[in-house]
This record gives sequence, structure tokens and C-alpha cells, in this order.
Amino acid sequence: MKFVDSRVRVRYAETDQMAIAHHANYLVWFEIGRTDLCRVAGTSYREIEERGMLLVVVEIGCRYVIPFHYDDDVLIRTSIAEAGSRSMTFHYELRDATAATLHATGFSKHFWLDRESRRPIKADAEVMKCFTPFL
Amino acid sequence: MKFVDSRVRVRYAETDQMAIAHHANYLVWFEIGRTDLCRVAGTSYREIEERGMLLVVVEIGCRYVIPFHYDDDVLIRTSIAEAGSRSMTFHYELRDATAATLHATGFSKHFWLDRESRRPIKADAEVMKCFTPFL
Amino acid sequence: MKFVDSRVRVRYAETDQMAIAHHANYLVWFEIGRTDLCRVAGTSYREIEERGMLLVVVEIGCRYVIPFHYDDDVLIRTSIAEAGSRSMTFHYELRDATAATLHATGFSKHFWLDRESRRPIKADAEVMKCFTPFL
Amino acid sequence: MKFVDSRVRVRYAETDQMAIAHHANYLVWFEIGRTDLCRVAGTSYREIEERGMLLVVVEIGCRYVIPFHYDDDVLIRTSIAEAGSRSMTFHYELRDATAATLHATGFSKHFWLDRESRRPIKADAEVMKCFTPFL
Repeated sequence: MKFVDSRVRVRYAETDQMAIAHHANYLVWFEIGRTDLCRVAGTSYREIEERGMLLVVVEIGCRYVIPFHYDDDVLIRTSIAEAGSRSMTFHYELRDATAATLHATGFSKHFWLDRESRRPIKADAEVMKCFTPFL
Repeated sequence: MKFVDSRVRVRYAETDQMAIAHHANYLVWFEIGRTDLCRVAGTSYREIEERGMLLVVVEIGCRYVIPFHYDDDVLIRTSIAEAGSRSMTFHYELRDATAATLHATGFSKHFWLDRESRRPIKADAEVMKCFTPFL
Repeated sequence: MKFVDSRVRVRYAETDQMAIAHHANYLVWFEIGRTDLCRVAGTSYREIEERGMLLVVVEIGCRYVIPFHYDDDVLIRTSIAEAGSRSMTFHYELRDATAATLHATGFSKHFWLDRESRRPIKADAEVMKCFTPFL
Repeated sequence: MKFVDSRVRVRYAETDQMAIAHHANYLVWFEIGRTDLCRVAGTSYREIEERGMLLVVVEIGCRYVIPFHYDDDVLIRTSIAEAGSRSMTFHYELRDATAATLHATGFSKHFWLDRESRRPIKADAEVMKCFTPFL
């Protein structure tokens, strides 16, 4: 199992006056993808925060190929590009419902922070082990 | 001084495919209005939270009269309908830049909560005194 | 069949610094509820717009009872309070995943507009017939 | 004049449960920056669309250095990295109110499309001339 698929449907509120999904929503969909990956990996992101860690975003990139329209089904395909105890990078593909057509690609890079001090930490070995099947 | 005026400009991201500002954003603008009123009153909402209180929303109402479009200037006119130590109600008018044309009206009702316990509390007398000029 | 149930999970982006779902998102969830109701009724909202009609929001109300938190499952229960050829009113309940606990109630009132002229019209008889089972 | 400065204040609705501005909002702020640059250049983005053109986003990148918090003043400094009649690239810096501290950098790449056909076009010479002072 090398990636996790999530599905969202484009909300009316997510469209803009070009009658397409506004590009900032893609980052929200990426976030859904990586939290679903964490869940499938056996450690929900909610649980990660409850253990006192944050996975903050330090870099984002997205290429927009084909727009999505209102009510379209969006397939979010999330994989791990790099899983370090200091930082992690996720990779995303946004596809149509059949997965045949690529609409966008992107990545997000993250640092592990201590939730209280907001300083960089090394992630829990137990959490990191969850990600092994995705490497 | 019975009301506070705030100004926002409709963001592209706030439009939807009807080519008008999506109606959920009005609640965000109301929030800007009441935090500006707090600031003018001499107690920023940031400070209210730092004192250990939350002003949570318990009811919202909005009537939409004339839509706003992308790049329109929005005048948010906020007043206090009720200021109790247990609950507060704000009233809002959204107008065009000249204030001549009414686009929407609304209200929000709030309870004071303790930030830690999330239980109802009586608001600080010092904070409540700030709101006196608006009553 | 008197109501339609939709499900969403609270997105990280939908939380605010009170660590609850921001109240403006409830309006977006209501919108998901009523478009799902339209779909179940046999006339997707996308199709309604393609027929040249808009169902614009003219009034919104929401009472917030229990907050939702990140990653919570939200059950959106949508029903029709009034279905006229001039205006429609939807009613909403937001509940936990089991439907046992009520978190919020709300309504939205709408006018039918012609998509081009943006003037009030009488809705298509064919569209209105779809809503009959919900009355 | 090589850049344009815009100012926004972090909205409560823009925070997340990390108690910082959610990273997707940075793209919305970039959008405010580039539409302000267009306005200063003498051609509002509203006008660009009225002329039948769209400036669609084809790529986005953002590096997050220091988070913003609720009620923070954000300075958006927008410049043009490339202005072609086929595509344009904007560059952004997000700074604190004094401009002294860098919080984030980013870019957005755009294609000019015909508003009706949604096909690539060459931008109006008149529009492009507006951008000359920024090159």
C-alpha cells in the first residue's frame, strides 16, 4: 500500500466567479489527504496532536492542470515522499472520480514541533513506525 | 458613539459561481465588525481571550437584501443590542461604501465562557464597562 | 422519506483557535445538506442552475448548541419546511454520527431567480414536483 | 515603483486549532496582493475580467517561515517576476506591519485565458503596458 485515496465533492462555497473551485481549496484537500493517510497508517492526526506533537506546514507547492467544477468528485491520492523524524513531505495527486484524469499535483513539507514549546522535535518512534508501509 | 464602522473589500476567494459573495462570508464580516467594536471600546477580543474568557456564538441570523460582488467595498456597521454579563447580542448592517444602500442585516448572540473549563461565566466588570458607551 | 442525511468530517482548516469548528462553516454544511436533498429528490442543484434558475439565499438562522471538534463526524439532517414556486425554506439539524446528540439547528430561506436577469421567477413545475415527497 | 504593499489583519475565522493563521489563507492573501498590484498599475482585475480575460492560476508555491496569529497585521508585498503576454508570475513576501520581519514568501504563475472559450490567449497590449513600471 503506497498511497491513500480520499474523496471530496466540490462544495458550492468552494467555487469562485470563474465557476471553478478556487485554487486555495486544493491545500485544504491536500490536508484531508494527509490526515486520511495518517488514519490509514494507524495514527490519526488528532491523536498525533494529543500526544503533544504538531506537524506544521513549512512549504507548499501545487500545479493546476485541469480545473474542478461545482459538484465534481475529487479523488485525492496521497503518498509519502519523505518521512524523517525531523520533517516529512507528502505528495498529492488530484484526479477525477475514475482516477483516469489528473487535475493537479502538489506537495507539502512539514516539521515536527512540540505542541507546547512550538520548537522542533524528533517525532515519536511509534508514530514514525506507522508510516513505514508507505515508504 | 453608538456603532462602529469597519470596511472590507470582497475578495475573489469569497465569490462563488453566482458571481456574488458567498453568503457564509457575511458571518466572517460580522465577526470583523464585533472585534473592531471591542477594539474601539478599549478591549480587543485578543485581550478578552488572554484574560481567560471566550465569547462563543450561540445564535446567528442574517437577512440578505442585495448581493455584494467581487471587489465591492463593504461597510460593516456594528452595534450592541444587549450587553449582559452572561450574554451579549450584536447587531450588524452591511452597506455599500457610501453607507446609503443596505445590503444585509444580521445579529449574533453570544455567551461568555471560561476559556479553560468552557463553562458559562459572568464577564469581567472591567470588560463590561468598556461596552457602556455603546448601550 | 421526510429528510435527507449527509455526512461530513470536520476539516482542520475549519477549526479556529477555540479548537472548535468555526461557526461560519455551519452554513456551508447546510448548503451541502440542501444540495444532497435536491440530488435525492431527483434534481441536482447543478441541474437546477443548468435549467437557468438560481436558488439564492435570502435569510439564514442558526442556533449553536454543542460545538464540533476537529475530525468529528457531522450528520447533516435536511428537510423542507416550505416549498413554494416563489420561495423555499429548508430546515437543518446537525447531529453527531449516531444521530443521538443535537449540536445545532438552522434554516435557510431562498428565492427562485432567473439566472440571467437575476429577477424572481416561478420555479419549474417539473423541479417542484421533485420536492413533493418531502412535504 | 517595483512592488505594491497591501495590508490585511488576520481574521478569527482564518485561525485554526494550532492558534495560527491556517496556511491555505496565505494564497488568499497573495490574491489580494496581486489584485492590488493590478489596481495600482491602473487596470483592476475586475476590469481585466470585464475585458473578457481571465488570469488563471497554474502554479503556486509558498514557504512558511514564521506563523501569523489572530489579529496580527500582515503586510503583503507583491512584485512581478515575469510579465508575458502568455503568462505572468507574481512574487510575494508576507511581513509584519513594520516590514522588518519576513513571515513567508511565495509565487504564483498564471496563464491568460479567454473568458468565454477558456483557451489561452495573448493578453491585451493595453493591459500589459500597465505592468511595465513593475518590471
